[in-house]
Amino acid sequence: MKKILCGVDIGGTKLSTTLVRMDGSILDKCIDCDHVDKPEKELVSQIEGNIRRLLRNNNLQELDLLGIGIGCAGHIRFNDGVIITTSNLKGFKNYPLRNAVQERFSVPVILDNDANAQAFGEFKFGAGKGYDSMVFLTISTGIGAGIIINNRLYRGLTGTAGEFGHTIVSPDSELTCTCGNRGCLMAVACGMALPHLFKQKIREGKVSRLDLPPDFDYNKVDGKLLKQGLDLDDPVSKEIILDSAYFVGIGIYNIFQALNPPLIVLGGGLLSWGDFYLAQIKKTFYEYARDMIFDPFEIAVSRIGPDVGVIGAASLALELC
Amino acid sequence: MKKILCGVDIGGTKLSTTLVRMDGSILDKCIDCDHVDKPEKELVSQIEGNIRRLLRNNNLQELDLLGIGIGCAGHIRFNDGVIITTSNLKGFKNYPLRNAVQERFSVPVILDNDANAQAFGEFKFGAGKGYDSMVFLTISTGIGAGIIINNRLYRGLTGTAGEFGHTIVSPDSELTCTCGNRGCLMAVACGMALPHLFKQKIREGKVSRLDLPPDFDYNKVDGKLLKQGLDLDDPVSKEIILDSAYFVGIGIYNIFQALNPPLIVLGGGLLSWGDFYLAQIKKTFYEYARDMIFDPFEIAVSRIGPDVGVIGAASLALELC
Repeated sequence: MKKILCGVDIGGTKLSTTLVRMDGSILDKCIDCDHVDKPEKELVSQIEGNIRRLLRNNNLQELDLLGIGIGCAGHIRFNDGVIITTSNLKGFKNYPLRNAVQERFSVPVILDNDANAQAFGEFKFGAGKGYDSMVFLTISTGIGAGIIINNRLYRGLTGTAGEFGHTIVSPDSELTCTCGNRGCLMAVACGMALPHLFKQKIREGKVSRLDLPPDFDYNKVDGKLLKQGLDLDDPVSKEIILDSAYFVGIGIYNIFQALNPPLIVLGGGLLSWGDFYLAQIKKTFYEYARDMIFDPFEIAVSRIGPDVGVIGAASLALELC
Repeated sequence: MKKILCGVDIGGTKLSTTLVRMDGSILDKCIDCDHVDKPEKELVSQIEGNIRRLLRNNNLQELDLLGIGIGCAGHIRFNDGVIITTSNLKGFKNYPLRNAVQERFSVPVILDNDANAQAFGEFKFGAGKGYDSMVFLTISTGIGAGIIINNRLYRGLTGTAGEFGHTIVSPDSELTCTCGNRGCLMAVACGMALPHLFKQKIREGKVSRLDLPPDFDYNKVDGKLLKQGLDLDDPVSKEIILDSAYFVGIGIYNIFQALNPPLIVLGGGLLSWGDFYLAQIKKTFYEYARDMIFDPFEIAVSRIGPDVGVIGAASLALELC
């Protein structure tokens, strides 16, 4: 019988568990929203319960699984399967999640950073199919990335390689990242920058066409609101989207110079800004790269879509092949 | 009999040809300074002649060589051994130098970018000994780099990976790189930035203790002059060295976030600024990296010294092992 992949995506609001076929299609999945405050062992039990229930519901045995891949935001030490820090969950500091889950299953368990998981999913089942190397960049509240070199995830010393979101692209910026630094790509180009940028434009006297209440809390400005603004041809929203695209373009250019990959795939919530956003990202990239591209190089958009997190987690089991 | 490595370093002023023992020590070398204006075929003949003469003088046969490694500045397409562009030589646009040399020898010939060659030399025989991965950054008139992952050079699609010198770190800078872009690391942090930075400080009314003639051409400001300034406690020289160190520190931090290597090795002419420079580079790096270093990480200085170019070129032959 053909093996099945199991993926677990530990997000900040959802715990998704999925059975995935070897072609990347979803066989079954379940989603919980009550996992965030649980202590470590209870979350491990919840993960185990979800997997066993999905197996039962699909008349599968544990040994039908090729492996269980777990994706989790934060700093993960891959080699020993430890969550060093994660902002998605309470506790879990230096917690050996991989071994804790592994103790309950006889098939291999792999734990990795969510961006690495998404990157590998996109590589195996999405826009990366047919390539042997690529970089995946997810642009959402934060910016994560995963590097694939010669068909494998490149993780570096600790497992934190690919943190392009924390590279400094504008050291004099007044925008601060959750890491505490100013001017890293994440601070200036993604969801966490949007409230500040919106407030700044309003302070500069720009007028938004968005129908916002007088007591609107600008800290609630997010990608969805700016998408509404974009659809309304709101100049404030458009300017902010262009600001983000400019820095993402620089980020991609820097990745191109650093790693010279054949493909960079973009994913994440802010891609909902569509062609307007993507065109501007590419414009900035090609303005910098000009005559320094010597072989076919592509900037593509994630093909897997919203399930990339959990399909990506499942794909980690394919690293064992 | 133990094999010998042959290295050829095609520089902007010197053509160095060397026989190197398997432990990285130099057996013999010759240096020409008349190669720059030669047409392609004449340079190939000069390289062949130098190698054959060195072999003869050391009672060696061609087959005593493990291989011939050639390092050359510029964009090199590694897989087909072609110089795409190089600023060191006239002509040589899309010139298949590797094959041209290979036709004259029966041992393998490898052509790579000079920074890659230096990186591999430092990895095999210098500060990288004992590691399996590292990044080498050479800070001189420009900034070059080479990436070693799992004991091999990582070259990317074309062979231009590791161009951290061209990554954008200060997009609003008025400093322009030879590539045409503003604010790339090379534009703001290395030799090519020094004249501009010196002029700027003088314009700001700062007074240098360097004994410069009234008609001094500030375009001649270079690393050596600032070293004199540093030794004289010249405030202008020191400020410029600190400016460079700040951006190199950011560059190293960005490499750390992107690739999470266990080791970054610094080489190149500006390292002659010594501990004052290195301490400031490290200060900037650790201010940014703070609590994001989870495993032993080292910033080291090149151990091979001035021969790193030609020893590095020779080391490329070890990639065949």
